[in-house]
Amino acid sequence: MSVLSYRPSPEELSYTFGGRQAVAEVRPGTIMELYTEDCFGGRVRTVDDLPSRVCEFPFLNPVTGPFHVTGAEPGDTLALHFVKITPARDWAVSTTFPHFGALTTTHTTAMLHAPLEERVWRYDIDLDRNVAVYHARKSDFSVELPLDPMHGTVGVAPAANEARMTITPDAHGGNMDTPELRAGVTVYLGVNVEGAMFSIGDGHGLQGHGEVCGTAVESAMNTVVAVELIKGVATPWPRMEDDLHVMSTGSARPLEDAYRISQHDLVTWTSELTGLDTLDAYQLVSQAGQAPVGNVCDTNYTMVAKLPKAYLGATTVYESVHARLRAAGSAYTS
Amino acid sequence: MSVLSYRPSPEELSYTFGGRQAVAEVRPGTIMELYTEDCFGGRVRTVDDLPSRVCEFPFLNPVTGPFHVTGAEPGDTLALHFVKITPARDWAVSTTFPHFGALTTTHTTAMLHAPLEERVWRYDIDLDRNVAVYHARKSDFSVELPLDPMHGTVGVAPAANEARMTITPDAHGGNMDTPELRAGVTVYLGVNVEGAMFSIGDGHGLQGHGEVCGTAVESAMNTVVAVELIKGVATPWPRMEDDLHVMSTGSARPLEDAYRISQHDLVTWTSELTGLDTLDAYQLVSQAGQAPVGNVCDTNYTMVAKLPKAYLGATTVYESVHARLRAAGSAYTS
Amino acid sequence: MSVLSYRPSPEELSYTFGGRQAVAEVRPGTIMELYTEDCFGGRVRTVDDLPSRVCEFPFLNPVTGPFHVTGAEPGDTLALHFVKITPARDWAVSTTFPHFGALTTTHTTAMLHAPLEERVWRYDIDLDRNVAVYHARKSDFSVELPLDPMHGTVGVAPAANEARMTITPDAHGGNMDTPELRAGVTVYLGVNVEGAMFSIGDGHGLQGHGEVCGTAVESAMNTVVAVELIKGVATPWPRMEDDLHVMSTGSARPLEDAYRISQHDLVTWTSELTGLDTLDAYQLVSQAGQAPVGNVCDTNYTMVAKLPKAYLGATTVYESVHARLRAAGSAYTS
Amino acid sequence: MSVLSYRPSPEELSYTFGGRQAVAEVRPGTIMELYTEDCFGGRVRTVDDLPSRVCEFPFLNPVTGPFHVTGAEPGDTLALHFVKITPARDWAVSTTFPHFGALTTTHTTAMLHAPLEERVWRYDIDLDRNVAVYHARKSDFSVELPLDPMHGTVGVAPAANEARMTITPDAHGGNMDTPELRAGVTVYLGVNVEGAMFSIGDGHGLQGHGEVCGTAVESAMNTVVAVELIKGVATPWPRMEDDLHVMSTGSARPLEDAYRISQHDLVTWTSELTGLDTLDAYQLVSQAGQAPVGNVCDTNYTMVAKLPKAYLGATTVYESVHARLRAAGSAYTS
Repeated sequence: MSVLSYRPSPEELSYTFGGRQAVAEVRPGTIMELYTEDCFGGRVRTVDDLPSRVCEFPFLNPVTGPFHVTGAEPGDTLALHFVKITPARDWAVSTTFPHFGALTTTHTTAMLHAPLEERVWRYDIDLDRNVAVYHARKSDFSVELPLDPMHGTVGVAPAANEARMTITPDAHGGNMDTPELRAGVTVYLGVNVEGAMFSIGDGHGLQGHGEVCGTAVESAMNTVVAVELIKGVATPWPRMEDDLHVMSTGSARPLEDAYRISQHDLVTWTSELTGLDTLDAYQLVSQAGQAPVGNVCDTNYTMVAKLPKAYLGATTVYESVHARLRAAGSAYTS
Repeated sequence: MSVLSYRPSPEELSYTFGGRQAVAEVRPGTIMELYTEDCFGGRVRTVDDLPSRVCEFPFLNPVTGPFHVTGAEPGDTLALHFVKITPARDWAVSTTFPHFGALTTTHTTAMLHAPLEERVWRYDIDLDRNVAVYHARKSDFSVELPLDPMHGTVGVAPAANEARMTITPDAHGGNMDTPELRAGVTVYLGVNVEGAMFSIGDGHGLQGHGEVCGTAVESAMNTVVAVELIKGVATPWPRMEDDLHVMSTGSARPLEDAYRISQHDLVTWTSELTGLDTLDAYQLVSQAGQAPVGNVCDTNYTMVAKLPKAYLGATTVYESVHARLRAAGSAYTS
Repeated sequence: MSVLSYRPSPEELSYTFGGRQAVAEVRPGTIMELYTEDCFGGRVRTVDDLPSRVCEFPFLNPVTGPFHVTGAEPGDTLALHFVKITPARDWAVSTTFPHFGALTTTHTTAMLHAPLEERVWRYDIDLDRNVAVYHARKSDFSVELPLDPMHGTVGVAPAANEARMTITPDAHGGNMDTPELRAGVTVYLGVNVEGAMFSIGDGHGLQGHGEVCGTAVESAMNTVVAVELIKGVATPWPRMEDDLHVMSTGSARPLEDAYRISQHDLVTWTSELTGLDTLDAYQLVSQAGQAPVGNVCDTNYTMVAKLPKAYLGATTVYESVHARLRAAGSAYTS
Repeated sequence: MSVLSYRPSPEELSYTFGGRQAVAEVRPGTIMELYTEDCFGGRVRTVDDLPSRVCEFPFLNPVTGPFHVTGAEPGDTLALHFVKITPARDWAVSTTFPHFGALTTTHTTAMLHAPLEERVWRYDIDLDRNVAVYHARKSDFSVELPLDPMHGTVGVAPAANEARMTITPDAHGGNMDTPELRAGVTVYLGVNVEGAMFSIGDGHGLQGHGEVCGTAVESAMNTVVAVELIKGVATPWPRMEDDLHVMSTGSARPLEDAYRISQHDLVTWTSELTGLDTLDAYQLVSQAGQAPVGNVCDTNYTMVAKLPKAYLGATTVYESVHARLRAAGSAYTS
């Protein structure tokens, strides 16, 4: 087993997908131990650290990477299996942020209101008890919420020579902000450029559906990822797989288009996996499909379309790479 | 315990919320045993019964009602607790329908494509084994899906002297098509007219998230509902409560506005229930809130915002009517 | 020439399309002299009359009607030619209104901001000089704007036994708020119920594109309309015609769907009028078509699709009813 | 007068804003004579040249540039005055394109329909008579349309180290596809990177509003541009000015957000230019503002907000650079 550990120095952090040189080369089959900073670059540490004061645009939502995957070429699929995602600190933060979030005027949904108040919440992270503790700012109210660590941002370099801010989710991945991206999940990303150039960041101790205020329980993470490459198989939009489900994603505006992309991909993928004709697959997904909301606050919104593998009959998903990576992950952790 | 049984004759079915006389008077505290027809009025019985041939616009999505609730006035809240929802036949149907569904041109998302093929699927319903059996139309593929019976449509007469087709969800309820509306759930509806004038229909043996093809596993239902009235308490959008969660809904286009409405209502409701200031409630919902998709195919789309009651501290929801109706339902069924 | 004059008393005003009895019977071929109140029912008369205080929901946007057109049946088309639209007072008003407008949180685009300030502007209307005079409220700035009188609201009773608030534009017409609906224009409305049951209201001395703050230069109007009926010809969405153009409308959310509906209708209508196949008509409209924005602030948004008749070759639009009504209007005014 | 002529070789064409080296240095005050290729790179020349066969993604919508403007720094504004835009050939083309356009399923508004037929129309361009001649493909129908030459694409390198496909309009400009961008207009673009790095392309002999089928009358152009730099003045979204109007733009999805951005910018800009408080400016724009539709087919949609300068009182726009560049253009052409 080949293991690669990497912890970026501040100046090695990336703020785009595309447009950067690789920080390291990774061979398929490698287990990676990665450190990722939180979306504020670790600068928001107390309730007095207002992000608009301590952070500087566009140096937000840093990712660890990009990594050049040996042998990856356009038309291939990169598989990243998340073995472990562990909060790296005993605290985390969340904030409102001027002109960001679903229930506020933004630069896109532009209105004449003054911004909502900028406010920071600091959570205690207790890994032993597996909780994050919420503390109200204007009262003594406090409540423990179960941790469910995930990465908001994972992606590869985009097609068409684009470079995109890490905050933007699209066909290359990016800031999808779906709680489905937790340990035990394999993410499939279509390769657009030689080496794939993937990056990971934006760890969340937990996140509500849609990340309605714009930020989750933002936490630096120690994350273990198993990397594999599937040659000659293209993937149109990021997909995921866990032991029980296949998942497609879509990122767009308006939100129904994110829904359409994800459901369209799940229908056509189901058709491929089962041999069902398209309308028969449409029907099956219509009754048995789930649609977890990713983000409804970023520059594109994200929806996930999810189907239990039990309903697909006997079929093989991406050459069974999920099972192999899961086994590799188990070997690593044991 | 007062029990009212009602089974509409075909000519008693309603196709709008508002604009109709009551079919019966109901006193708060009543248990109702209702029969509801499926969304096709029971006319689609075989795979050869194409809905565009056997059904006639606007006689689609019939509801049972409206019921006049004794004493209900604008500004009150009607509470409907679903005690039991039982498929009434050993079969159910689903279909594509020209210009209806999320992955097809519609009269609203108007395009130049010919309609998708109209096709009917007939499901076997097995109550003993609690499954609906899907059969592909173009192959031998078949799979059992677990039943999770629900009502797609529940609502009251709208405000402002409007009458709306039952297919449309809005602030008065209507065709929200959320799988959350299953047995064990109490629905809260703001009363807009004297008597509330509520109706129920559109039973689904089960439904995927978003009802992507436009129809679910459509089934006539035998449904038991406990009715209560909360005087002097207004409810801006339909809300729900089960033993573990409070839920708000929003219905609008685009889908992000349905999300916004539902999350806005959940945030302000959470603030009321906990005494948290608005931004503190926004933060709590942002991390602990769920957002199950209702429909993404009707004339308005529907989202649900859902929060575990465990995170609200000691609080009382709608004068604890859910607990009382749940007890009444248990007394009825035992 | 048959002339019918009608001025509603306050209690005769209507607030819905559908759900009301006719105020009068009108025979095709009649010239109608109508008085319409402004959208505030004439209650906002000074800058101190805040609409949220002097008006009461749902008694907003009153219309004059409904009128029962002799012989009109579902499947016919009602033609209303606007001969004259004349402001009835030497003042008019415009306002911001809490939760209404394009650059503010609304009940649908729900956000956590406090409402924008409610403010009233009073315009001087000078018919001789054909101007409305804008006066800033917080400074001495003043400017004359050319009058371009129009009706924001015109429609018939909706299909499917619906009744809709007059504020809502949809396939039956309603509050489309397009400046294209000025004198000299013939509006075509598909008849959904026996008698058509049309109403008119919401006069604007002038209006910007999209009515961005939610209200225009709101004015009572003395309006002359020539009424005709086209038997056996259906019209899917409101259409308009002036001496030089044919126009289709669409009303929906999001705004691109309003655009799609209007352009789709113009493309298929162009195909009918010219004999061009659908894609050839699509191409012609793509290069020569205009797309004036109607409203971007109401419960549905409205777009107009507009094409010079000069590009259609020799063709006859709606049996040349526009030319006949124009001539009838000229005879009336001379 | 300094004049710079530049005609790119095929390999010098650019397909992104950002991410490329400059093709030339330009000093403020220069008049540029530029050749731009059409959006198909000149490869679609007959009705048999289907773009999906003769073009290759992502080599679509080439632009001429980027040009490095001497002294331009982030926070400045680049002013480009279009002196002349002249079709370079006596023919032009337009096409449908699979999964592109407003009335078809796309990769974003993903549906299960087969693509619409791909078809090419070839227009005759007659500069003497100032017309483009449309020829139907499936009949003998033909019609002359007046030329109104414009550039669909103009922009600078984006902020935040992004590189974007030229097809995408956003705050940096890009493929806004507005017919307002014709000769006589000055475009103002906020500078994001040292040198501004602007490019121009996508000439249209004429274009309907929204470019509904996805392409206009696509033509190579000989274009004369006067370049100026406004130091220390930032511009949030592309703006335009002609002799009679100021204009703001917004590009986003859904279309109402493009409208909101453009109107918001026009309101705040009007407030700056006149000294009106924000709500007074909101009111003035609401009544006197226009809203020409840009594109409703690209990856973001574009709206323009437009106000006659006559209503602004005595004020100076961008240090009167439009008047100076217009004079320089006149000097050049005379």
